[in-house]
Amino acid sequence: MKRPLTYLRSDPGAGPLHGGDRSALRSLARLPESAWLDLSTGINPWSYPLPEIPAERWQRLPEASAETAFAEAARHYYGLAGAVGLAAAPGSQALIQWLPRLLPRAAVAVGGFTYKEHARAWAAAGHDLLAAEDGRIPAEAAIVVLVNPNNPDGTRHAPRQLAELARRLHDRGGLLVVDEAFADLAPELSLAGQLETAADAAGLVVLRSFGKFFGLGGLRLGCAFGDPTVTARLAEALGPWALSGPALEIATRAFADTAWIAATRQRLREAARRLEALLAAAGLEPLGGTDLYRLAAHPEAPALFERLCRAGILVRRFPERPAWLRFGLPPDGEAERRLADTLGVPAAAPERR
Amino acid sequence: MKRPLTYLRSDPGAGPLHGGDRSALRSLARLPESAWLDLSTGINPWSYPLPEIPAERWQRLPEASAETAFAEAARHYYGLAGAVGLAAAPGSQALIQWLPRLLPRAAVAVGGFTYKEHARAWAAAGHDLLAAEDGRIPAEAAIVVLVNPNNPDGTRHAPRQLAELARRLHDRGGLLVVDEAFADLAPELSLAGQLETAADAAGLVVLRSFGKFFGLGGLRLGCAFGDPTVTARLAEALGPWALSGPALEIATRAFADTAWIAATRQRLREAARRLEALLAAAGLEPLGGTDLYRLAAHPEAPALFERLCRAGILVRRFPERPAWLRFGLPPDGEAERRLADTLGVPAAAPERR
Repeated sequence: MKRPLTYLRSDPGAGPLHGGDRSALRSLARLPESAWLDLSTGINPWSYPLPEIPAERWQRLPEASAETAFAEAARHYYGLAGAVGLAAAPGSQALIQWLPRLLPRAAVAVGGFTYKEHARAWAAAGHDLLAAEDGRIPAEAAIVVLVNPNNPDGTRHAPRQLAELARRLHDRGGLLVVDEAFADLAPELSLAGQLETAADAAGLVVLRSFGKFFGLGGLRLGCAFGDPTVTARLAEALGPWALSGPALEIATRAFADTAWIAATRQRLREAARRLEALLAAAGLEPLGGTDLYRLAAHPEAPALFERLCRAGILVRRFPERPAWLRFGLPPDGEAERRLADTLGVPAAAPERR
Repeated sequence: MKRPLTYLRSDPGAGPLHGGDRSALRSLARLPESAWLDLSTGINPWSYPLPEIPAERWQRLPEASAETAFAEAARHYYGLAGAVGLAAAPGSQALIQWLPRLLPRAAVAVGGFTYKEHARAWAAAGHDLLAAEDGRIPAEAAIVVLVNPNNPDGTRHAPRQLAELARRLHDRGGLLVVDEAFADLAPELSLAGQLETAADAAGLVVLRSFGKFFGLGGLRLGCAFGDPTVTARLAEALGPWALSGPALEIATRAFADTAWIAATRQRLREAARRLEALLAAAGLEPLGGTDLYRLAAHPEAPALFERLCRAGILVRRFPERPAWLRFGLPPDGEAERRLADTLGVPAAAPERR
């Protein structure tokens, strides 16, 4: 093959590894892929149970009725007022790809040390990126991108303050983009609760990821809500039949499964606490995170990363922050013991084992 | 819901109906959706058998190794030389949406009476559309879009002539876009066979649809091949993880299943002949088509369309060509009898029954 279909992710030293690409690190450890313990992603290891999918969902183009049912379920799950616009895409990444192409060239600030795809996409579309890594938004930014809670450090922005920022940007013809990829775990952080009228949503776009909280990253589904003029442009750019039939089927059910959603939030919260206790017992300094991953610092993080690799455990590292490591949730007791053993934590150390 | 996620397709009189939206016509007939016989699409009714999909394909982000295996299978199936570029998207519609946005404003001609989404997408991206409905390409066109074989009338362009047209356009800085959505049925028509070197592919982009021939329209998968600089821009615009894990899994298998592919081509060819004989027996004038649908004319086509609707049979009509109707393949003997009965054809009329 001459060109990869997507970005080659074969050189783990070349930059922060995207989650989920175990094959890229096979060269580091000679273990077969199946023996890897992949803690490099922020995807729920206890995924929403896959329903039987009628063959028709695969065979036929998705019908308007299925799209409408999905949109209603999404609106209810996110808590959207009727005046708020909604668009859906095959993955929130597809929205990250499209949004910068639909707006005139502007000065764009991506707040803080965060998910790299935002800055890359705005730059690739020809916008002028302003440096904002110290967390302060430059006053000249017309478009501001924030991740709430932030990935990887879990920094939280109060939704009321974000709504104010959106108003200020909108008054100047600008836009606030908030990536709430991990807000399913902390719905009180979502801007949805601030949006009652169309005016509230003006100048604001919120991106949501389905795959992370519901544990179905391979399904490819993401939503944008907010300013109806912006979501309408996204929907028009994406065109008809943007979502697969199975994705519509699964997500419509999952969004409505309030019992699973509540139990999963609780389960992830407890798992994240156990993970944080394990990391602390190994001498890693907690830096925050969300209930789907914990960020920690260690003076010898690079050596620790290699030790984990040799043990077949893949975590996320950050070339620009060499002391940082990000750990996803161990999917079961065996994985937790394997992580504890490799980090030199006595088996009894994690709380509530 | 304030805004539909995709184009509202609820008014069948508003324009040529896209395939697959039976719910849009429910108001015409009071039958429940499940009782409809939908012959409005060009999707194979005998879809590729769905394999067991490992849960991991749903749960994890698609890995580079899965994307590479898929790309290799696609290259082999399409018969692509190594120098030819390849990009894949969640549906060929996604490629139709992106391509016009990645090219500078140009004079664009869409050849003949064909799939409406091409003209719509180029116009929406701000290009200058030239009229070319009589089939002659205006000399001032820098970008030419052709569908081969054409939908709905099945007009075929010789791939050698298209390669020459691509060269001429490329010499002037232009581009030929060939939508081969139905070329799986007639692989000798594909431009793939004309492309041996990178120079052959210059100025040429071919779009392919997975869902039509393989009968899995809800899966959402399409490919673009040709000029590596253009496919690279498409791949970059689509971004990482553009395809779902299940789509990669299913398509990688299907592309390699040469026995199913050969048997299906034969089966569809025979079914299309039977359908054409049935339509001729009903007094419909054959106008061509592909092995996934037949186009026919009748002086009272609008009344025929309504009679079919009242019988719960949905076919494709064309407001600009009121005498035309397009018929998909009846999926079984019962459907064929129902169509024959409604058209007033004696049960014994179709050949080789």
